[in-house]
Order: sequence, then structure tokens, then C-alpha cells
Amino acid sequence: MTPIPPTDDRFARGSRALAEIDGHGGEAVVAALADIAPDFARYLVEFPFGDIYCRPGLDLRMREIATIAALTALGHATPQLKVHLRAGLNVGLTRGEIVEVLMQMAVYAGFPAALNGLFAAKEVFAEA
Amino acid sequence: MTPIPPTDDRFARGSRALAEIDGHGGEAVVAALADIAPDFARYLVEFPFGDIYCRPGLDLRMREIATIAALTALGHATPQLKVHLRAGLNVGLTRGEIVEVLMQMAVYAGFPAALNGLFAAKEVFAEA
Amino acid sequence: MTPIPPTDDRFARGSRALAEIDGHGGEAVVAALADIAPDFARYLVEFPFGDIYCRPGLDLRMREIATIAALTALGHATPQLKVHLRAGLNVGLTRGEIVEVLMQMAVYAGFPAALNGLFAAKEVFAEA
Amino acid sequence: MTPIPPTDDRFARGSRALAEIDGHGGEAVVAALADIAPDFARYLVEFPFGDIYCRPGLDLRMREIATIAALTALGHATPQLKVHLRAGLNVGLTRGEIVEVLMQMAVYAGFPAALNGLFAAKEVFAEA
Amino acid sequence: MTPIPPTDDRFARGSRALAEIDGHGGEAVVAALADIAPDFARYLVEFPFGDIYCRPGLDLRMREIATIAALTALGHATPQLKVHLRAGLNVGLTRGEIVEVLMQMAVYAGFPAALNGLFAAKEVFAEA
Amino acid sequence: MTPIPPTDDRFARGSRALAEIDGHGGEAVVAALADIAPDFARYLVEFPFGDIYCRPGLDLRMREIATIAALTALGHATPQLKVHLRAGLNVGLTRGEIVEVLMQMAVYAGFPAALNGLFAAKEVFAEA
Repeated sequence: MTPIPPTDDRFARGSRALAEIDGHGGEAVVAALADIAPDFARYLVEFPFGDIYCRPGLDLRMREIATIAALTALGHATPQLKVHLRAGLNVGLTRGEIVEVLMQMAVYAGFPAALNGLFAAKEVFAEA
Repeated sequence: MTPIPPTDDRFARGSRALAEIDGHGGEAVVAALADIAPDFARYLVEFPFGDIYCRPGLDLRMREIATIAALTALGHATPQLKVHLRAGLNVGLTRGEIVEVLMQMAVYAGFPAALNGLFAAKEVFAEA
Repeated sequence: MTPIPPTDDRFARGSRALAEIDGHGGEAVVAALADIAPDFARYLVEFPFGDIYCRPGLDLRMREIATIAALTALGHATPQLKVHLRAGLNVGLTRGEIVEVLMQMAVYAGFPAALNGLFAAKEVFAEA
Repeated sequence: MTPIPPTDDRFARGSRALAEIDGHGGEAVVAALADIAPDFARYLVEFPFGDIYCRPGLDLRMREIATIAALTALGHATPQLKVHLRAGLNVGLTRGEIVEVLMQMAVYAGFPAALNGLFAAKEVFAEA
Repeated sequence: MTPIPPTDDRFARGSRALAEIDGHGGEAVVAALADIAPDFARYLVEFPFGDIYCRPGLDLRMREIATIAALTALGHATPQLKVHLRAGLNVGLTRGEIVEVLMQMAVYAGFPAALNGLFAAKEVFAEA
Repeated sequence: MTPIPPTDDRFARGSRALAEIDGHGGEAVVAALADIAPDFARYLVEFPFGDIYCRPGLDLRMREIATIAALTALGHATPQLKVHLRAGLNVGLTRGEIVEVLMQMAVYAGFPAALNGLFAAKEVFAEA
């Protein structure tokens, strides 16, 4: 098993990753948790961003493709999908690539899931 | 709207894509449908493979990342996930990249979905 | 609100409906519950079969179409889907009609859910 | 395998089916896709409506029962469920039959899914 | 099998349980069903509340933990989750205990499901 | 935000919690990950067990009720459900309490999910 870095690193590293990937969207989620579940805000920074997104084996464009695909397929995670549609643009995916991923979800999760993903993208792209 | 090619092209194109991407796994699914739903075998070749996977806007490695992520997150599609774990290797993803995608699903669909995906990959990698 | 019949009727009525619709498959499920959750066996007879399937507003063929569609779309209910594929045949659906419903699920729940439903039907039809 | 008709037919046939089944609801979805994913609008007309709904083996009332059941059970497809609640009325289902299908979903997908379906129907019926 | 009490008891017993557990939230759901599916209102009182919540083997605090966990994990049942977040407080769970359950769902259903649950709790706690 | 303990503590603490809660089942999962995703084995010990299950705000019996409810409702996590049915017994839940939770899931996730949960419990209880 690889050596385990100290936790402080996880939080600092996760905060940088969150800012790079999700921008203000990620900060807003963390801030909204402050009065109800501050420890959960910490876990959200540490595990998904400090542990997973910082891993070297997959670049951030590929990680966002995986996340956008999964959130579209799950169907119940529209707010998080919007955050990651913005994140996909932040890390260098084009609108066209994102639309391809959303369309492909019709095959695996059905047309309604793909349509809801495309309409979420329409909103996010209109803001940018 | 872009010009619509004749359907024959969709089927021929989809067959080539299916063979390239899924190899024998795809052919086996099509063959298994022959006596219960032959038209569905045709749709499976035409729409996912003839229409979607042949589109130029996303390379096959990225398409397989999206598919592996979605099938892992959905959780009820283990046979199809195994077909696409093999497909991921066929189109050039490394085992390490596939494992990264599967681990990342713990964040979005929970640890059980990620674990089931990792154990499916363990089986598929052992065969290869 | 319509008058409420005594519960004895619900159980007797549900038992008759279960036998008519699911045949031995329903009885087997009830029997398998006897040592772990006998009250749940009773609820299963009373609510789905005594209350819902006995209602006059929809014939049993239509009810089984709804059930087969839902169980295929949910994806995690293969044992129950098999019981209701047999039930569909029992109440007069043809194999062709059942296959149409299963194929249609590709549109709403994705190709993997439809494929898993078709392969479950293949098994059930082979037994008959 | 049955002969494959040219794609032009699929689009024309699907457009007629979409208009007959979903009325303005279907057209509105297609129009909303025009600026984000026009090819997906075409696929939506061609595959679900040109390929599946036009098949002869199941009448449209039965197809809408299957769709309403699946969308209610999935739970994440409320906009599409509303389109198909209207479609069910368009193809000749009565309000009573639709309510029966929605209630039955409590058995297979739980009371929350059924309640959300019934409240969607309440909105759709109030508009008509 | 235990003796089956008359249905009148189920409805009366369920009404008392519903009032105790869900308070006005439960009554509002029942009232909203009156014009679209009055029988379903009756089933909702009878089966979940008259049959299940009245059973002696598990206290109401534990039952609400199970319900809050399940509704958070399912992801498509936000209105029902809010009713049961209030119900959890009604039967004696503390805000802290409810937040623990919601956070734990990140492990089993992913961070988006947990976040959506926490933000639903934030709304419900703000009203109280 | 509370002070963050060093990661070593998380892993050691999580290992103790995993052993206490899941017994050999947890160790077997960790061991099975060793050759495919050893870092994921570490995350599994650290986040769910080191971070979440060790939190003081909810006792382990309540945590296992939440987990059993969620895994039953999700429907695609049977191997993990079996691990946690054993875990429930390990931390002091009675078989009767576990059966109550599983039956209650019929209300929220449908009868098939509850039945699959009850049959998983039947297997687990038979081994003990």
C-alpha cells in the first residue's frame, strides 16, 4: 500500500482541486453546508477532491466525462450535474464534447435522462 | 439538420463499430437476441453503434469512459458493464485508467456501486 | 371514500388473485417467506393482490404490461420480473406483446435494462 | 431479419407518430433541442417514434401504459412523465385507467414514486 | 399466521399513526389525493401507517431513521423526504442524529444524494 | 471546523471499526481489492469506517439500520447488503428488528426491493 500523506495535505490539496475544477460552484456548496453539516463540507473537500480528483492516473477532462456521464445516468442529481457541466468547461472540455457525452447517455440510461442532461447543459451554456 | 444517410449505412456502419469496440462480446449479444427479438438486435446495432458511437465529436476512449462510468453508477447493468470493460481495453484505455473511473464512481453513486464495478473489472482483467 | 370491506376478504380475494395471476410462482414466494417474515407474506397477498390487482378499472393484461414495464425499467428486480413474465402469459398476453414492451423500455430506461428484460423473457419462454 | 426501410421513412414516420401521440408536447421538446443538440432531436424522432412506437405488435394505449408505468417507477423523469400522461389521454386511455397504473406503481417502486406520479397527473388533468 | 384484524381498525389505527408521525404533512398529502385518487389516500393510511408503522418490533425513532436513509438514497423522493425529516423530529430524533444519517448516505448512495438530503434538511430545520 | 486528525489515525481507527462492525466480511472485501485497487481498499477503510462510522452522534445500531435500509432500497447492492445484515447482528440488532426494517422498505422502494432484502436476510440468518 502506498504511504499515507497527513490529512492536512488532503484538505489543502482538495481545496485547491475544488477551486480549479468547480470554481465558485464548489465553494458555494461548501459554504451552504457550513451551518448544517460543517464536517460534511470537510469530507467533500477531502475525499472526492483531495483523494480522488488529485490522483495522477486520469486527466481532469476524462474525470469530468466520467462524472457528467454518471450524474446524467443517475437522474436525481441535477444540481451536481450543473456544477460539473461548468467544471467540464473549466478543465477544457468543449461544449460539443459535453453534448456528445449527454447524448450517449440515451443508450445506457434512456432518453429522459439524456434529455434532462441536455436541458441542464442548455441552461449552463446560456450563463457562460 | 444534417443530411440523413440511408438506413443500410446505419446497419453496416454500426456492425463495423460494434465489432471494433465490443469484439466478440457484442456479437454474442446480437446472436443471443436472434430467436427472441431479432429486430432489437438490429436496433442495437443501428442506434447505439451506427448512430452514436460513429459520431466524430468524441474519441472512442472518451466514449468508453462515459459508458463505464454510467453502467457502474446505474448498478443494474453488470453484464453490459463487463462487455464495456473489455471494450475499454479494446479501444486503448489502460487497466489503470479504467480502475480510476471505477473508483471515482464511489463519489457519485456510492461505495457499493464502485466495489461491484471493481470486482467486475477483476473478472474481466483475469480473462484477458 | 368507498366502503371498506373486512380484511378477511382482502386476504381471500388476494389469494385468489395471486393464484390466477402468478400461479405457482406467487405461491412459491409466499411459501419462501413463511420462516422469515410470515406477516410480509400476508401483506404481499393483501395489498398488491387483494387491494390493487382486484380493482375493476384496468384489465389484468394491462396491469401486467404496467408491471413488466416497471420491473424492467427498475433493473434490480429480475426474480420478480420473471414471475410477472409468466403472469403476463397467464392472463393472456402473447409472447410478441411482451417482447414489444421489453424492447420499448430501451427508450425509457436504456438498452441494458431492455436487454436484461429480453434475456429474462428468453429463459421464461424456454420453460413454458 | 426483416428488410430495413430507408432512413427518410423513419424520420417522416416518426414525426407523424410523435405528432399523433404527444401532440404539442413532443414538438416542444424537439424545438427546445434545436440549438443545443439538433441531431438528438432527430434521433428522438427516429428511434423511439419512427422505430418503436410505429411497430404493429402493440396498440398505442398499451404502449402508453408501459411508458407511464416505467417513467413513474424511474422517478427522475417527471417532465417526460407529464408529456406521456397527456399522450395517454391523446391515444384513448381514460383518466381512470391512468390513475390505476399510477397507483399500481406503489407496489413495484414504492409509495413516493406513485404519489409523485399521481400529483403529476393531477396537474396534467387540471390543464385539459 | 397471526389473526387478521378487521380493516376498519387498519384505517383508524393508520390515521392515528399518520397524525402522530407526520403531523400536518401527512394530512396534507391525504387531502391532496382526495380529488384524483381517494382510494390511494386510503391505502396510504392503511398499509404504510396502519400495517407497518404500527408494528411493535421497532420503535418510531428507528423506523424514521430507516425511512430517511431510504428516501435519501433513492434520490427521487424529495417531497416525501421532507415530510419524514419533520416526522423524524416529531418522534424524537435530534437534528444532529438526522444529519448523521444523511451524511452516512454519501457512503452508500454517493455525495450528490447526501448533499440533496442535507439541503432538504436545511430547509425543514429553518421552518421549525 | 473541528481539528483534523492525522490520516494514520483515520486508517487505524477505520480498521478497528471495520473489524468491529463487519467482522470477516469487511476484511474479505479489503483483501479482494488488494490486487486490483489497493488504494480503494484504503479509502474504504478511511472514509466510511474511519470518518463516518466512528462519529459519535449516532450509535452503531442506528447506523446499521440506516445502511440496511439504504442498501435494500437501492436494490443493486446485494453483496454489500449481506455484509451489513451480518454487521447489524454484530452490533446488536435482533433478527426481528432487521426484518422490520426490510419489510418497511416495501413502502418506500416497492415490494420487489423488500423481497430481495428479506431473501438476502434468510441466507445470512441461515449461516449464523
